[in-house]
Amino acid sequence: MDDLGILEIIKKRRSVRKFSDVPVADEMITQILEAGRWAPSGLNNQPWRFAVVTNRVIISEISKLTHYSKVVLASRVLVPVFLDTEKSYHREKDIQAVGACLQNMLLEAQSLGLGAVWLGEIIKSDGQIRGILGLQGGLELMAVLAVGHPAESPRQTTRKDLKELIVFQD
Amino acid sequence: MDDLGILEIIKKRRSVRKFSDVPVADEMITQILEAGRWAPSGLNNQPWRFAVVTNRVIISEISKLTHYSKVVLASRVLVPVFLDTEKSYHREKDIQAVGACLQNMLLEAQSLGLGAVWLGEIIKSDGQIRGILGLQGGLELMAVLAVGHPAESPRQTTRKDLKELIVFQD
Repeated sequence: MDDLGILEIIKKRRSVRKFSDVPVADEMITQILEAGRWAPSGLNNQPWRFAVVTNRVIISEISKLTHYSKVVLASRVLVPVFLDTEKSYHREKDIQAVGACLQNMLLEAQSLGLGAVWLGEIIKSDGQIRGILGLQGGLELMAVLAVGHPAESPRQTTRKDLKELIVFQD
Repeated sequence: MDDLGILEIIKKRRSVRKFSDVPVADEMITQILEAGRWAPSGLNNQPWRFAVVTNRVIISEISKLTHYSKVVLASRVLVPVFLDTEKSYHREKDIQAVGACLQNMLLEAQSLGLGAVWLGEIIKSDGQIRGILGLQGGLELMAVLAVGHPAESPRQTTRKDLKELIVFQD
């Protein structure tokens, strides 16, 4: 793979919020988690933890806990991603590591031809989601990835010009 | 690029801490920043800001502010990455977005054949680094990427088994 390849994947990735009914193959789910697993973290503490939800009843329960119910209901797989607060060594650095982990998973989903969206608003329902999944404390919900085969064309998006982002250059 | 491509880059990426004296081409630096620029963020608020430091005197000054002086001194480019706290809408989500941005930059560096390391310990010197760069408040140092052409073989690293990371699966 040349350098164009990865930058192209990065630039072409879009949030996908509409999915077909086609299930996501287990192997694809594993590859997405593998991508997350190989993210970097401070002191290599790997503070991310994953739930993998494909059960329609559970997905339906979770969909009631967010403003984005339709997106959750349309997805074929939900991956709630948690911070293991007992393995945390520095809150800001651990949260950054979880962000790196999430981005790896989004890029892998994109490269597999799947659609995915990083849901943030849903973390307001951290406790209820842990309740549904039967998870104890020590885990803090950071985001939920909703994944499926895309049923919409890539959306337009924009980014600030690089010159707006560079605060110093010598 | 097929799906194997990106997972391979993700899995092959290593922290590189020894660099040759060969400068990094401006175009490569731009491609790394481009990769960061296209990260996802909550409400697309793009809270990341970049400094680009290649001046040897400034790199030397910054090297005095970390335990990892040798790594900083050996690098050809430093990219201090800041959170624009005035653009922040939710601290945890913004910090995750900065983590996604950093990971994009590391992956792009890897795919360009460069070496890079995500430095976290150095953020203890946030105020002093902003002072050296002449930056005002409203920016919070999240990490520094040290970049150059690698002068070491890829190191060994490990990750937890996937089954240790999965807290729920239906």
